[in-house]
Amino acid sequence: MDIVAATRPAGFSDHVKVRTGDLADPAIAMKAVSERPDVIFHLAGVVSGEAEVNLEKGYHVNLDGTRSLLEAIRKESDETGDGYKPRVIFTSSIAVFGAPFPHAIPDEFHLTPLTSYGAQKVMCEQMLADYTRKGILEGVGVRLPSIVVRPGKPNKAASGFFSGIIREPLNGEEAQLPVADTVMHTHASPRSAVGFLIHAAGLARDKIEPRINLTMPGVCCTVAEQIEALRRVAGDKVAARIRPAPDELIMRIVAGWPHRFEAKRSTELGFVAEGSFDQIIRVHIDEDRGGSFVA
Amino acid sequence: MDIVAATRPAGFSDHVKVRTGDLADPAIAMKAVSERPDVIFHLAGVVSGEAEVNLEKGYHVNLDGTRSLLEAIRKESDETGDGYKPRVIFTSSIAVFGAPFPHAIPDEFHLTPLTSYGAQKVMCEQMLADYTRKGILEGVGVRLPSIVVRPGKPNKAASGFFSGIIREPLNGEEAQLPVADTVMHTHASPRSAVGFLIHAAGLARDKIEPRINLTMPGVCCTVAEQIEALRRVAGDKVAARIRPAPDELIMRIVAGWPHRFEAKRSTELGFVAEGSFDQIIRVHIDEDRGGSFVA
Repeated sequence: MDIVAATRPAGFSDHVKVRTGDLADPAIAMKAVSERPDVIFHLAGVVSGEAEVNLEKGYHVNLDGTRSLLEAIRKESDETGDGYKPRVIFTSSIAVFGAPFPHAIPDEFHLTPLTSYGAQKVMCEQMLADYTRKGILEGVGVRLPSIVVRPGKPNKAASGFFSGIIREPLNGEEAQLPVADTVMHTHASPRSAVGFLIHAAGLARDKIEPRINLTMPGVCCTVAEQIEALRRVAGDKVAARIRPAPDELIMRIVAGWPHRFEAKRSTELGFVAEGSFDQIIRVHIDEDRGGSFVA
Repeated sequence: MDIVAATRPAGFSDHVKVRTGDLADPAIAMKAVSERPDVIFHLAGVVSGEAEVNLEKGYHVNLDGTRSLLEAIRKESDETGDGYKPRVIFTSSIAVFGAPFPHAIPDEFHLTPLTSYGAQKVMCEQMLADYTRKGILEGVGVRLPSIVVRPGKPNKAASGFFSGIIREPLNGEEAQLPVADTVMHTHASPRSAVGFLIHAAGLARDKIEPRINLTMPGVCCTVAEQIEALRRVAGDKVAARIRPAPDELIMRIVAGWPHRFEAKRSTELGFVAEGSFDQIIRVHIDEDRGGSFVA
């Protein structure tokens, strides 16, 4: 389900159904939930850059959309009284944390986001934990690190360049780097992100409740180290396609983002990310480029 | 302003105006804000016990009420374009924290409330910090410890007994104790609570932003120590008026509450609470009982 008509994914059985609508509309959320999904992966959201520029849209989609979904589940369960209690996997973000930070952010670090997107993610995490505690649903909040390399077109996420500086050069195009190459951040591949979601869907409740919002593991490195990894994997010519193009807004947003996480709890719970940025680049070449790139 | 008609406080000048209405109604919030208060003390809320029993009412009053106020300020400022930017002091609560806890909760401890009330307070704190960061208003979130001794009738707060076991015995009445006397908690008097709010209204912005939500100081003690303090201040006969009356719901709620705080930041910022529970009892005898009690 998406607010824009989604393409039917290829290679799946006839059981795939596509729905279109604004989840923040209670009637649309009710209709979707009335189909009784056992597991709901709730990824819908306005990304960080856009939520920062458009406050109303950010709260509408990120907060009201999630609330509307959780309320629809509560009402469906209340009205039918048959114990409907789906698992809800919510994609939260490391943007729930805000600077200043310790060397590595522990699992028990407080939530002081420095973007509207991060604030909205915290609000949704809280509501998800509350509805889980009340027995309305079985929530898991999955705080994703920056997922790279994203395939396709750039989006308005302030973190978009992390994908761009790998994706575009591998495609023979120039990429713009809006921040200094000393910026340090934590990453995982889209393959890992999917793995996180599926793993979350199978977690035993007693292992995670009531602290159901979990910081995922990832690869911590600087932009310079990412560029070095690109050079190792694809050569000098590819790495030379990255051009500095400082952007004040993105620099300011990224400056408030966390660098490094302990992620002890998620690691103990069996969530796994890549071991190096080289691996993250190889996942992109394998999955999105059919194994080759423009040298 | 309150949802029920408030009594005009005695001893104030003619500048006191009383307004009645549901703050969660955007039109009512807009009307209130159009009077251009310089400082808004936002205390309205459904208390912890009631928010736990009535989920919809809790989210309506505690989340929607606060959001409606913040949105009204944003719109008033946007529409007039004259830089209206009030200070907003929001009474949050130590219920934003949830067990298990370290020996003393540091200022940077994460937010994992175990009540709907606590979840709603976190959500409001986040929105207040976000609107402050965006320059819409100047917010300060004041996380109150349990305020005792509250005058008047008991309310539905799960923490109500903390006041009841002091107030009723001093009034010659029996009081019920719904939890074990080993329960440890942190308290401040209503006089301190007022002091916190006034102090928050005068804080320099650069001292607190962007982490505007502050855990207040207080007196940490067990219920047994509170009863001992009552015995010291008012004698054996008064202390003997407390009767055990175990209550499962209250015990469960209180078990998830924090015990002790470092409150380093608020102390450095000049917030002050009482130094002992004896003092807290004396404040009640002085301010609410005219200096005497039923021995």
